[in-house]
Amino acid sequence: MLELAFRPDRRRAEPVYQQLAGYLKELVEAGRLGAGQKLPATRELAVALGLSRNTVNLAYEALASERLVTAHVGQGTFVAAPGRRRSLEAPAGADGERLAFEGLFAARPPLRLPAPDLASEAPRFELRPGRVDVDSLPRSELKRAFARAVDLALPRLANRLDPLGWPPLREAIARSLVARGIACGADDVLIVQGAQEGLDLLARILLDPGDAAAMEEPGWFGARLAFASRGAHIVPVAVDGEGLRTDALARVLRGRRVKLVYVTPAVQSPTGVALAEPRRRELLALAEEHQCAIVEDDYESELRLGGRAAPALAEADTGGRVLYLGTFSKALFPALRVGYLVAAAPVLRRAAEALGAAHFGGSLLVQAALAELLAGGALERHVRRVRRLYAARKEALLAGLAAHFPEGTRFSRPAGGTVWVELPRDLDSRALAHDARTAGIAIALGDVFFHEPGERRCLSLSFTSLPPDAIGEAIARLGALAHAARRKGSQP
Amino acid sequence: MLELAFRPDRRRAEPVYQQLAGYLKELVEAGRLGAGQKLPATRELAVALGLSRNTVNLAYEALASERLVTAHVGQGTFVAAPGRRRSLEAPAGADGERLAFEGLFAARPPLRLPAPDLASEAPRFELRPGRVDVDSLPRSELKRAFARAVDLALPRLANRLDPLGWPPLREAIARSLVARGIACGADDVLIVQGAQEGLDLLARILLDPGDAAAMEEPGWFGARLAFASRGAHIVPVAVDGEGLRTDALARVLRGRRVKLVYVTPAVQSPTGVALAEPRRRELLALAEEHQCAIVEDDYESELRLGGRAAPALAEADTGGRVLYLGTFSKALFPALRVGYLVAAAPVLRRAAEALGAAHFGGSLLVQAALAELLAGGALERHVRRVRRLYAARKEALLAGLAAHFPEGTRFSRPAGGTVWVELPRDLDSRALAHDARTAGIAIALGDVFFHEPGERRCLSLSFTSLPPDAIGEAIARLGALAHAARRKGSQP
Repeated sequence: MLELAFRPDRRRAEPVYQQLAGYLKELVEAGRLGAGQKLPATRELAVALGLSRNTVNLAYEALASERLVTAHVGQGTFVAAPGRRRSLEAPAGADGERLAFEGLFAARPPLRLPAPDLASEAPRFELRPGRVDVDSLPRSELKRAFARAVDLALPRLANRLDPLGWPPLREAIARSLVARGIACGADDVLIVQGAQEGLDLLARILLDPGDAAAMEEPGWFGARLAFASRGAHIVPVAVDGEGLRTDALARVLRGRRVKLVYVTPAVQSPTGVALAEPRRRELLALAEEHQCAIVEDDYESELRLGGRAAPALAEADTGGRVLYLGTFSKALFPALRVGYLVAAAPVLRRAAEALGAAHFGGSLLVQAALAELLAGGALERHVRRVRRLYAARKEALLAGLAAHFPEGTRFSRPAGGTVWVELPRDLDSRALAHDARTAGIAIALGDVFFHEPGERRCLSLSFTSLPPDAIGEAIARLGALAHAARRKGSQP
Repeated sequence: MLELAFRPDRRRAEPVYQQLAGYLKELVEAGRLGAGQKLPATRELAVALGLSRNTVNLAYEALASERLVTAHVGQGTFVAAPGRRRSLEAPAGADGERLAFEGLFAARPPLRLPAPDLASEAPRFELRPGRVDVDSLPRSELKRAFARAVDLALPRLANRLDPLGWPPLREAIARSLVARGIACGADDVLIVQGAQEGLDLLARILLDPGDAAAMEEPGWFGARLAFASRGAHIVPVAVDGEGLRTDALARVLRGRRVKLVYVTPAVQSPTGVALAEPRRRELLALAEEHQCAIVEDDYESELRLGGRAAPALAEADTGGRVLYLGTFSKALFPALRVGYLVAAAPVLRRAAEALGAAHFGGSLLVQAALAELLAGGALERHVRRVRRLYAARKEALLAGLAAHFPEGTRFSRPAGGTVWVELPRDLDSRALAHDARTAGIAIALGDVFFHEPGERRCLSLSFTSLPPDAIGEAIARLGALAHAARRKGSQP
């Protein structure tokens, strides 16, 4: 065992555990306790030094909080590597980074990820978008699908790297797209790690830094992130009750070269409106006239399978200009990270090359399990079940908004799973979000969907996570908070 | 049903099925059969036109081969979308691409993916590297791990997007790295979609176009791909029987600014040698002196768990300069697409930002299942079993090479799962590869591991896919072909 010459000085104001931590820290910094070396068990050290075990525990915890040591359950506590130690303490741009990596980072500001905080603890009332109902996920079917994938597909896929994706899944997706009016085959489908990867790949192959990309305003911030990451100039185009304003887009296109237009025609993100039929035709004609690509993000397509929704924009595309993105994040769950791109061959080939260079392709076992779910009809049955479930929840949310929110609040029946709420002008939306959080109600402000930062007094409220009763209760409480935020806001 | 005015002309040389296909093609091109429209069932059409069903089938197949229609099992045959039609026919750079996407692609040549063809049919004797033994994969444990992940982790992960990865897996990886001498915690680990994504992310955050990156020569082509994709200038540094020549690296670093050095110290890829101890120290000192990062690709680390291998280079890194990459592609299988990056906090943070912007993170369900495999000890048991299996296979390959290959063939006992074979100068290695393929023996030429294209007369032979007897037989046959290729080569 390690020889330690530590003697506590009980006359000092510093607690003994801090003295011990300081002593151990000196040993580490002098190199007498080397990286990877195991510290004595707390019980042994306590006996050897005549201290309580609690004191030794506290000392170890203090060292761990400084990242000098790391504890591993069942294995003990180890001295951390020096490089990691110092740099992990350093905040962004602080000395650690400058010292060890000066000049190493590519000269550009770090990317900000405006993704909603999907990783935090579950609140009592979850109304933020991008979530599915966990309790209704088809667990037995999922387990069976993975078991079948391991039994039947694993031998063929284990040693395969396929940037295009698992062929049976691509075939199953192509088949399912008949419901969206899209006639394509497996060779037209590229599997991506969520629609976001599709956006990133399209940005990388279609946009050069400084190129212009037009998108809906308000619009999906993931698209803005992908285009901005590539250094593109983003041109926001207004949205109204019939979706993207094609007249505004026409003015933009007459004025400057725009390489791509990003749209969510079936269910505009975030407002939930569907693109009106005349505008669909205008949009396609504009893209043809101005030689630009259309990125159609059909992110709720699966949930609409078999429904009366308009076919995808890609259905009416005669020029091969529509690059179609779909996802299983809504029909199953976001953490699955499986989406797909359907596009003309030259685009698909370049996207597959970029995807292959990035990581040689996604996890084929997940794709094989998903193909099982699709082929056996389990996914379709799940989607039918969930659509009924969500329909009742949507009514509860709309009724609650009508009953409990202050006069001047505007919202309309959405085509998809979130309701876009415009709050009265005299309401402090950030105060409302704060008060809601305190009350256990998680809501998302709409600010992040706009191109320019600033308070927009909008909410994107989802009804997918809660049963109707809970939605009713949450919206009643939220309405009361909104009334309060309004009174506060209108006081001097 | 669609009215068809088709009459076969049996006097023409053109077969009737081609006449029917031509007729239908005209209807499609005239717009009378629109995209997404369903063709009549072959049986119905055969009856209606007085043709055999086989003739109609052949006509539909001819249309499908031209991508004018797509067939979906159980649903019928549909007219394909025009945009996809034309462009899918067009080869790279042909009219389709120029017409529809002129000026749209970012101005750069397409990436070439030199990855070995992992997707082709299984040959009789598989000796190419990058593959694991499929029969010994722990299928029951995999199924159990996925079932547990669905039962226990799904509620917590379903709605979570986490660019860093599933925390229990990061914790389990950090614990397992104690065996490689690396003391780190879950916060030091970023989950990536295979080590290749780690390389891509590091290239993106550390390299600007034109920057220099040094790597082993011969060296892992995936690293070259990642650095070259970023527009970096690649500086090859020679490898000998003790790994990377640090004297050669020192000369390079004195002459020019190099931002990162890529190495495979435990098992040099592709030669299989381990980096000698004095060179490990020299490499770290050089990185410190010249302020460059070291990318340590410990790609066979899991297979060496509990072995007598030298600790990772990262273990002796006091400056936080070593960026450590690991993978589960060898311990489990490549198509799992799970690897990890362990790095100082500023690097890890930037890499996570880049990963998040690219796809919001990998599939957490796979990560949760993998965490189950690690935590329950199933992976360690599997690795122990496979190491015994591979040990016997390695002996069979080495013995076969010694017994059957022509004089002048050079190879040495590798630290990992592939043997690097240098063939005699008078042997035509490409003829050998061709003859081997014809004989049902899949081998990989070493050419792809070199910076400059050209024939190198090297093979990278893996013993992981076949039992010892089959390896013996394959090597005996291959040796005979090598003798033949030599004689051929030495004739005028």
